[in-house]
This record gives sequence, structure tokens and C-alpha cells, in this order.
Amino acid sequence: MTERRVVITDVGPRDGLQNQQKILSVEERIALVKAIAAAGVPQIEIGSFVSPKAVPAMAATEEVFAGLANAGFTTPTLALIPNMKGYELARAAGAKTVTMVLYASEGMAQENAAMSMAEAEAITLDILALAKQDNVDVIATIAVAFTCPFDGPTEPFIVTRLVNKFLQAGADQVVLADTIGAAHPQQVRDLCTTLVNSHGAERLGCHFHDTRAMGLANVYAALESGIRRFDSSIAGLGGCPFAPGASGNVATDDIAMMLQQMGFDTGIDLKKLMQASDLAQKFTGSAPGGRAKAWLQGSLAKQVS
Amino acid sequence: MTERRVVITDVGPRDGLQNQQKILSVEERIALVKAIAAAGVPQIEIGSFVSPKAVPAMAATEEVFAGLANAGFTTPTLALIPNMKGYELARAAGAKTVTMVLYASEGMAQENAAMSMAEAEAITLDILALAKQDNVDVIATIAVAFTCPFDGPTEPFIVTRLVNKFLQAGADQVVLADTIGAAHPQQVRDLCTTLVNSHGAERLGCHFHDTRAMGLANVYAALESGIRRFDSSIAGLGGCPFAPGASGNVATDDIAMMLQQMGFDTGIDLKKLMQASDLAQKFTGSAPGGRAKAWLQGSLAKQVS
Repeated sequence: MTERRVVITDVGPRDGLQNQQKILSVEERIALVKAIAAAGVPQIEIGSFVSPKAVPAMAATEEVFAGLANAGFTTPTLALIPNMKGYELARAAGAKTVTMVLYASEGMAQENAAMSMAEAEAITLDILALAKQDNVDVIATIAVAFTCPFDGPTEPFIVTRLVNKFLQAGADQVVLADTIGAAHPQQVRDLCTTLVNSHGAERLGCHFHDTRAMGLANVYAALESGIRRFDSSIAGLGGCPFAPGASGNVATDDIAMMLQQMGFDTGIDLKKLMQASDLAQKFTGSAPGGRAKAWLQGSLAKQVS
Repeated sequence: MTERRVVITDVGPRDGLQNQQKILSVEERIALVKAIAAAGVPQIEIGSFVSPKAVPAMAATEEVFAGLANAGFTTPTLALIPNMKGYELARAAGAKTVTMVLYASEGMAQENAAMSMAEAEAITLDILALAKQDNVDVIATIAVAFTCPFDGPTEPFIVTRLVNKFLQAGADQVVLADTIGAAHPQQVRDLCTTLVNSHGAERLGCHFHDTRAMGLANVYAALESGIRRFDSSIAGLGGCPFAPGASGNVATDDIAMMLQQMGFDTGIDLKKLMQASDLAQKFTGSAPGGRAKAWLQGSLAKQVS
């Protein structure tokens, strides 16, 4: 990964769709994932193996895996898992990379997963050990890494401890998640700089929501700190069903445009990305659509895109 | 001005209202200006002295000045003027600070003001000379300082030349305007760093639109370069009647929340600012409202504002 290469993981088919009123069919989910891949997005989180009662939109994620495998799909895919049962389901479905969630607050751990921070750590360590044997990659995402809706601002030492522990334990990536979109750029800059200085940027990522119009400001702050991996969501789909006040993820549409303008290499074709964004809006009926699209499809596109 | 002090100029009553379908009454305009001032915003652009045929929403700006003077209003106010006639009207109305527009492209100068870049410079120099005698402050705002909808990306040397010339000529401030919201953070960082290194930050400001979700990212980039003066617009009102594709200014609601969270001193009371934002939305029926409000008025306000 060069300094000008930025790796986007589109989490819309998971973090986005789980928060929409409308539940998409397996065929629609597959079509959306294919459209995102066709635009050159290098990694896509295509679903989760959680209780279908708790998150009905993510039921049948194994069928999404199967459908993509049958179609010869080659873009790296991720699945979110909450626990060992989820890991086993993901492995059985053919997942090569799984995302586990760690918590930087007890309040969020309880509300989101009905466990303690320590229990989430223990489960993730168990899964990491198994995954090494299975040749499955593990991404550890630290929820509420900046601020928690229940416990308030997160102390940086809680996050740095988790990052140290899970990078040492062999996590392939650790992602700092601003779960509810409450981080501000100075906070991002300070925490990311500390972490990049200690660990380098190769295995660190950030996941921002745009709840308060600071999404891309936080991305820029992280970029300035050396971070080169970001989660984002096609058409700005997103939120969190268990985090009050969270709105959509940073739109892949918008982050891709900003990175391209700043001279970073994302491998993404903006025109094709807008087609994927259109599809997300069509399927869900409620995706906000990002801001880049109006711009790219408007009268200014030729002159100043 | 200390390093932690940031001066916001709310341009909503001018840059915002001139772009709304609905034309506000003089009484509504005065009430909005008062509400913004009551929230502690230190400077407000309350109107312009332009042709009422071209910009009907700005007719009777002299009555807004008179109404505020009669009410003993003390917050510094600004008026935009396009030419010497506008200057004379502004001075007659009692304006203590006027904003003149310079152009960083010939295309925008022609479309917006039917003059050349050089003509706009000459007029501004004439007004500067007169204003010195009259003890009136002059802000020179450089339109399309980053990108022009007609001529494409702006060469930085065009902007640095204008900044040098007008600071030397005695302009009280020079503001870099991203008129259509097409700047990206690296561009902002590079240009602002160059200018702050040459001139210091005291008399420099930035004016961003949030057309492509990069508004606050650009503000953060400018802050990092040392800039401490920003234009923004209550409730995200804005646009430009002569610049295709321009959407609202950065919302004062959002920039004030970000700056407060980052530890800057703006003097703004966020709760009162939301009342001003509510009023802007009520009067116009179309102000987007910023993103901070949903947050501050939502269930998370107590925990993580």
C-alpha cells in the first residue's frame, strides 16, 4: 500500500441495509454488491451472521455468499459476526474475512451485544485463534471509539489498549468506529496520530458516520494522520439499530470524490459508482444518495468534476 | 485574536436569503438578524446594495439598517456592494463595513458582474480609497478562489496576487470564497498555508459552501493552516443565483458545533443559535437547517453534545 493508495471498504450492504425499513431480497443484495464491485471498490462487507430476529434484513446472508460464489465473484468480501456461532456460519458460507466488534464502552457493549467489554474481547480472541487455523482474516472493529451515546466521550487510553492488544493478537486490521457520528476532527487527528506513530498505518482503518456533517472532515483528519483505510457506505446508507441518533455512514459516493480530487488512488470509477448508488436508492427507496451525485450528474460535471 | 478564537460572520441574511424562492419582509429580515446576534455571532452580513431587479430579495436593505439602528443594535454588520453606487447607498444607510467582490476568473466576473477581473479590481481600489476617508471598513471577497464553474480550477497564483494586492492596498480583510462548493481540503490547505505564511492570519478569511459534503472538511483544512475567520450561513441557507450548481453555505449551526467541540472560542451559544436556525427555516420554508440541530435537539444531546 503506497502513501497515495486508499482502500475503501463499502459497508453499505451490511451497515447500510440493516438500517433500512425495506428488507431487500437476496437477488437485490447480490445485484447491489456486484454494482459496487463493478465500480472498482476493492472490499465489500456483504452481510452479517446475526440473529435474523434481531436484524431481519441480514437473514440469508449465506445465500448472498452462495450467489456471488456461483457467479464467480472475485472482489474480497467481508461478513460481520457477533460471536462464535456467527463465525461458524460465516466460515460455512465461505467467508474469507470476518469482522468482529469490540467495544470501547460498557454501555454500548451491553446495549448492542448484551455482553461486557471483556466478554467481547475474550470472544474475539477465541475467534482470532480459530480463524488463524482456518486461514480466515479477522478485522476487529472498535465500536464507539470516540464517543458513546450511553457513556459519553471515550477515553483514548481505552482505545489504544484495545488496538495494541488486538494487533499483537494478530488481527489483520483494527478499525476505529465512530458508531454514532459524534467524533470531531481534532479528536480523530490526535487518536489516529498516536496509533499510527505506534503501529504504522498498514493495519489501521476508520469508520465514520455523517450524523453532524463532519464525516468528510473526520476522514481528512484521519488521512492527515496517515490512515489509508476507510469504511463507507454506498449512497450514504447507514445508521445503527441499537445506537440512538446515529445517521448514515459517510457515503462512498462522497469519500471517493474527495479522495480522487485530493489525488489519492482508490481504484474507483466515479461514474460507475453513481450507478451503484442509483441502484441502492432504487432498491431501498430511502438511501440519502450522498452529495457527489447531484454534482456529478449536474451541469457542472464537465467543467469542474 | 488569540489562536483559539475563531470569528464567524453569518452571511445568511445576504448570501442565504438572496437564493430563496420566498422574499422575506424587512421585519422578518430584522428579526432574523437579531436572533443570530442574540446567539453571540460576532459579525452578520445583513444585506446587499445591488439592483433590486437583479436580486429582489435584497431590496430595501437600507430599511434593515435603519430598523436595526432604531433598535439600538450593536453587533457589527456588513453589506455587500457591487460597485460605487452600491458603496454610496451603503454609506448613506450607515454601513460601517462593506464587502466588495473580486474575481479569480474572467468567466465568473462576466457572468456575475458583467465586468472583467481588472475592472472589479479597479472599482475595489477606488472604493477602498474612499472608504478610508469615510472610516468604513472594506472586506474584499475573492469569488471562485478555488474553482470556477465556467473556467475550471483556479490557478493559485491568481489568488495570491489578488490577496497581496488588496492587503497592501489596505483591505481590512480578504476572504477566499469557494463560491460553488468545489474546493477540496488539500487545495484549501495548500493555498491557505501559503497565504498565512506570507501575511499572517489576522486579515484572512474563508467562505465555503457545502455542495459536496466537504464544507466542514475544508473548514478544518483552513483551521489547520491557521485561518481563524469563516463565513457561514444560519440554517445552511445559501447558493449563488449566478453560479450554476452552487448549493448552501456551510451552516453556522454545524461550524459552530464543530468549533466548540474542537475547543475553539466562537462566543456562540449553540442553544440560542438553534432558535435562530428555527426562525430561518420558518421564514424561508426551505432552509436545510444544518445537521447540528437534529443532533442537539435529539435524544443524544444530554450525553454527547
